[in-house]
Amino acid sequence: MDSAELLDLLGNENRRRILRLLATKPCYVTEISEYIGVSPKAVIDHLQKLESAGLVESRVDDQRRKYYYISENLRLEVRLSPYGFGAKSAYPASTRLDLTTCRHLSIDVNHDNGPDLSDLAKELNALEQLERELSMAQRWVQGRLTDVMEKLGEHFDERDARLFGGILSELADDGSDAESLARELDAPLPVVAEALEKLAEQGVVERVDDQWRLRS
Amino acid sequence: MDSAELLDLLGNENRRRILRLLATKPCYVTEISEYIGVSPKAVIDHLQKLESAGLVESRVDDQRRKYYYISENLRLEVRLSPYGFGAKSAYPASTRLDLTTCRHLSIDVNHDNGPDLSDLAKELNALEQLERELSMAQRWVQGRLTDVMEKLGEHFDERDARLFGGILSELADDGSDAESLARELDAPLPVVAEALEKLAEQGVVERVDDQWRLRS
Repeated sequence: MDSAELLDLLGNENRRRILRLLATKPCYVTEISEYIGVSPKAVIDHLQKLESAGLVESRVDDQRRKYYYISENLRLEVRLSPYGFGAKSAYPASTRLDLTTCRHLSIDVNHDNGPDLSDLAKELNALEQLERELSMAQRWVQGRLTDVMEKLGEHFDERDARLFGGILSELADDGSDAESLARELDAPLPVVAEALEKLAEQGVVERVDDQWRLRS
Repeated sequence: MDSAELLDLLGNENRRRILRLLATKPCYVTEISEYIGVSPKAVIDHLQKLESAGLVESRVDDQRRKYYYISENLRLEVRLSPYGFGAKSAYPASTRLDLTTCRHLSIDVNHDNGPDLSDLAKELNALEQLERELSMAQRWVQGRLTDVMEKLGEHFDERDARLFGGILSELADDGSDAESLARELDAPLPVVAEALEKLAEQGVVERVDDQWRLRS
């Protein structure tokens, strides 16, 4: 599901309360209705929206009573700064994800623990701590990104800083031609071409054939 | 600002479009209105909500025209799984945040670069890549957490897995008494006390005086 649909769903306090309740245990409509103090009809409306988005599912128990539970596993990240606004939703990665491909990050959590409960307890504790650390690191990175964008803003007109920053960041990895840069940055080619000429005048980038690159 | 207020604000497509536009450049009301195809009156309503929440601010330019820009810098993270639903919003950390306190995480980004533009370009590029890596790591952790909760669910009744998991995770760090556990887990003391007795019967935890701890 895309982040816009998810934000629309989560933009309702009662739906958030329903999800919070279902995350503690599967529930019948009457339980939800009593717990959050909303009519069964309204609860059913919310559940239908959550169900058609795939966030919750229902089953029927031995007494033929229908109960609801959370069926989805996902993350949503929203970043807002003077230099960017973006929301992305993603599904948790499988355990086989190869974190060794990370260039700037390394993680140390032993997850070859034994099968018994005290091993599981230790793993759960370590993962919860790692989760907090990753969240802290994300905030640190966002703070640094804003600082760097502000420094770039000292070199350019403020309205240009985002575009110029984008171009410089792309070229830091590898040389590129103007068409590819325009595509990557989702900006009109003439605007990108003009920005490249300005950066060349300042001696920051140079052109070799049709490839632009940072001057070292 | 708390995550509930932020989710309420972001649960509106036009407000998200306004933020996306303002993240590329500061704008007048007429510019926003034309760009997103919504009446100036409706745009002003949205801007007032965003302004009173502190997400945007306005200034008056040399021609006395009012323009709006994003004034806030924040992150929102939402996690949904069968075992938990939580949203948290946080402000980016200052550059002096000490990441060396992390037990499970280490980060390698040189941020003592020089002041010139090509250094800034390299730092921007490295930070953007680190941000993607952290996001990938967060998805991996969430996947692992769900796996561990499922394994715990094999040992207990499904309705108990979350509480028992919480208790075990707390005790993995250090011994604790029942009252403190109940407070940490926001659960009624009798429920926590009963769970501890069950875990003791299974030989997973033991009590020494009034302290409970994992049996190694």
